Amino acid sequence: MQHYNIYEMGLEQNPANYTPLSPISYLQRAAFVYPERVAQIHQDTRYTWAQTYDRCVRLASALNGMGVKKGETVSFLCANIPPMFEAHFGVPMSGAVLNAINTRLDAEAIAFILQHAETKILFVDREFGPVAKKALAMVAVKPTVIGIDDEYYNEGELLGETTYQALLDQASTDFDYLLPENEWEAITLNYTSGTTGNPKGVVYHHRGAYLNAANNIVSWDMGKHPVYLWILPLFHCNGWCFPWTIAAAAGVSVSLRHVRADDIYSAIHTHKVSHFCGAPIVLNMLNNAPAEMKGNIEHEVNAMVAGAAPPAAVIEGMERMGFNVTHVYGLTETYGPCILCEWKDEWSDKGISEKAALKARQGVKSPMQEDLMVASPDDMQPVPRDGETIGEIFIRGNIVMKGYLKNPSASEEAFSGDWFHTGDLAVWHEDGYIEIKDRSKDIIISGGENISSIEVEDVLYRHPDVEEAAVVAKPDDKWGETPCAFIKLKAGADADEKSIIDFCRNNMAHFKAPRRIIFGELPKTSTGKIQKFVLRQQARDDG
Amino acid sequence: MQHYNIYEMGLEQNPANYTPLSPISYLQRAAFVYPERVAQIHQDTRYTWAQTYDRCVRLASALNGMGVKKGETVSFLCANIPPMFEAHFGVPMSGAVLNAINTRLDAEAIAFILQHAETKILFVDREFGPVAKKALAMVAVKPTVIGIDDEYYNEGELLGETTYQALLDQASTDFDYLLPENEWEAITLNYTSGTTGNPKGVVYHHRGAYLNAANNIVSWDMGKHPVYLWILPLFHCNGWCFPWTIAAAAGVSVSLRHVRADDIYSAIHTHKVSHFCGAPIVLNMLNNAPAEMKGNIEHEVNAMVAGAAPPAAVIEGMERMGFNVTHVYGLTETYGPCILCEWKDEWSDKGISEKAALKARQGVKSPMQEDLMVASPDDMQPVPRDGETIGEIFIRGNIVMKGYLKNPSASEEAFSGDWFHTGDLAVWHEDGYIEIKDRSKDIIISGGENISSIEVEDVLYRHPDVEEAAVVAKPDDKWGETPCAFIKLKAGADADEKSIIDFCRNNMAHFKAPRRIIFGELPKTSTGKIQKFVLRQQARDDG
Repeated sequence: MQHYNIYEMGLEQNPANYTPLSPISYLQRAAFVYPERVAQIHQDTRYTWAQTYDRCVRLASALNGMGVKKGETVSFLCANIPPMFEAHFGVPMSGAVLNAINTRLDAEAIAFILQHAETKILFVDREFGPVAKKALAMVAVKPTVIGIDDEYYNEGELLGETTYQALLDQASTDFDYLLPENEWEAITLNYTSGTTGNPKGVVYHHRGAYLNAANNIVSWDMGKHPVYLWILPLFHCNGWCFPWTIAAAAGVSVSLRHVRADDIYSAIHTHKVSHFCGAPIVLNMLNNAPAEMKGNIEHEVNAMVAGAAPPAAVIEGMERMGFNVTHVYGLTETYGPCILCEWKDEWSDKGISEKAALKARQGVKSPMQEDLMVASPDDMQPVPRDGETIGEIFIRGNIVMKGYLKNPSASEEAFSGDWFHTGDLAVWHEDGYIEIKDRSKDIIISGGENISSIEVEDVLYRHPDVEEAAVVAKPDDKWGETPCAFIKLKAGADADEKSIIDFCRNNMAHFKAPRRIIFGELPKTSTGKIQKFVLRQQARDDG
Repeated sequence: MQHYNIYEMGLEQNPANYTPLSPISYLQRAAFVYPERVAQIHQDTRYTWAQTYDRCVRLASALNGMGVKKGETVSFLCANIPPMFEAHFGVPMSGAVLNAINTRLDAEAIAFILQHAETKILFVDREFGPVAKKALAMVAVKPTVIGIDDEYYNEGELLGETTYQALLDQASTDFDYLLPENEWEAITLNYTSGTTGNPKGVVYHHRGAYLNAANNIVSWDMGKHPVYLWILPLFHCNGWCFPWTIAAAAGVSVSLRHVRADDIYSAIHTHKVSHFCGAPIVLNMLNNAPAEMKGNIEHEVNAMVAGAAPPAAVIEGMERMGFNVTHVYGLTETYGPCILCEWKDEWSDKGISEKAALKARQGVKSPMQEDLMVASPDDMQPVPRDGETIGEIFIRGNIVMKGYLKNPSASEEAFSGDWFHTGDLAVWHEDGYIEIKDRSKDIIISGGENISSIEVEDVLYRHPDVEEAAVVAKPDDKWGETPCAFIKLKAGADADEKSIIDFCRNNMAHFKAPRRIIFGELPKTSTGKIQKFVLRQQARDDG
């Protein structure tokens, strides 16, 4: 007898029961339901959700008027100010793909991106005019350039024949923007800030952006109307998708041009900031700020921290100040964080150091990411959940990129075996939480034993004189490699090499303790990551 | 020049970056991340998330062992107890479609459903054994029957050769359940409780169930680990998708066999219930309960109420008791509520009556529903937002059914013009909030003027002697129709017809006031809706 399925007959998709998922829908709803609520704060400027929606429609309309077509790239080189926030809606509303460029890149890297992305229109904040000018000189096919003239900032150089605001002023407000025809269509393009080689263009789709926006609310328990401060750059994985999250929650987007402790504390106090994201280095800076700058914060401030495992001491310091720190993990390829250290009630009774140690683990998949495993990179078999065996982190689900732009071989490699390969190494604890031990290339192999540079750094950060620390492998005739630590001391501190090595030996297995300590400033990437490849060279060159 | 799209080349879906959306994923995550947390409470029984997951896998495995195939129907006739909750995962994990049958239906209606749904397996709670037995006698192709033997309930009759628990005990725990191949696949089948004619089988898909589960969390701001009490029947739009929401939020599902004020207050106090859903009639019952039963509730209790516009007086009463009432609107065809009266901060300063009046409006689309309009049923043009012009409510988006099972013409009609036609009449207020005035067939046309039966009822509920009220059209030679009110008085109250009519005339336009009042019990459907078609007949027959 033929098996037929009664649920597949006459029950097809139609416009009444199926809409492609797109975060544009969140903006439309926020403007419809909360037209008068403040959506954006930038110094003395306020835009409501109705005004923000209007500005985004005008941007889409203007781009359309300039001949931008579906699937073309519109790039922004801009600080965390309203045009950069609005671009996350206005550009896709025109059918184009938003490419937010890392503002800390040099001209060569920017030129590479403009060429690779085939950028049609480039918007340039006056702060980055000089570097953009140099970059444009290197580009064969020049994009149209539009200046962004921030009324609260007058340095740099304004490029282009017109400005973002003039474009908006002249644009139509009744432009009939479209949702994507298919939710798999590209929404943004983010270049990886790889420490070596040419950056890769990571393509996000509307479906993933929509789902991750909701995922951020659910996983962080954000509630309605969060007040979000832009410490994390909007060019960094689209600010971990928070522009779309803020719209979905009808919250407030608080601009921040420069990441400075005084500006951050001022915003927290003035606007009652409830949420921000950032790298551990930012927590470090906030933690080390003078007491009079910190003031007394009486409302709840939630910080989401990723980028590297924040040292337990830093997490501990922030919690003591009353910040609620959530540790997360992700990559550009996963729309930013999709793994979080989900907190358990029963942990709340533990001591603050033990809590910080639990919190320093990267954790579990977030509610709307599908799957996560730590497995052998060779055969992709999961490692035992023993908290000791190191494996590679693999992720799959709906919050994973479409792939790398114009780089099918890299995409294929990244997705081989039906999982996304993160290249990060971790252990899997018995309770299912993962803990990163290193980037594949950062692991130190000494006498055949693996040493996690992160584990050594974590001990160093507990030393009272250490402000920043990074550990890399140093070639060694006898051991193959040994750990070499680079340290920036706190102002006024005077610890020497021997005392720090002794401290490490007292707090970890001897073979893991650094054999060499080098003091000084640590080199960083534009996103604040320590450039270990520079340190590795220094370690090699060091007598 | 050919326009090509660089974002469509080599960026296809693959298992690493695309997973069909399914609420089964939420269960898997809750069990993985919170294995030891309590998931279900039923009297003295507790199941953790790990145990619940295990039980669902066993159910799927058992169904598979019984030869159930993808796209076949498994029906449950069961109270709000663990098997009914678990079926929401275990049945789809086997590939089958869950059909939760309204337990208040008579044998004929149940027989109709079993035949129409082509049910392969029927699970029967012993409470509903007698009616199921009668229904089965009327069915030509008999499903396999499995009894559900609740250890806390020993009335009724246990049917079948084996029981749900025995099936689970014998089933394998390592059954390799599958997510749907396509998120558009059917997950459940819910029959409408139409007041006339044969019920229609509304088919839900995995995508909608997944999205609405998240939508419930975001729109109700539920946070993590809500304690949810099952007042709303699980057979009613799958409990508005809350089984899946509870899994997504790793909350607690608190069973409730009978909707009684004492049991509800006891559960609220004992388990610190944080959330429940229900019909206005339930709020009414809770509101009218004796003070010693109510006790003093010190934690936050959130109630979501739909089914009909709750009278302002009832909302007011609950808020005075400290319950936080959210008014929502939806239909079986929209997975339950997808419209909610989104609260605005600035309304909190208003007086309690004014707040209740604002809260009595149905509101705006929920965050993950796509679109809502009030429009003319003739040409589908939106009505002006004047709070006066009555139109039909139209909805579209991802939280709308696949269609009606084996009824393509009804599906086509419901979706004509690319919107789902609700058949409910409303006005659209200036602020974009809708307010239901009536079901199309409940509107009263008197002297050419539309009278909303709900508006008249709302006034009646403000009368201190009225416990329940319903207004229908009564044929009238002069006016065409006039409003006729059916009223159940509170115990001990003695208001007469004239005093109630006078009260109405003092509180609304005279032509809207009822001309006739009939006292007595009100006839209700199995889901607690007042059966207006019975009342209309009574009004016609009334001298």
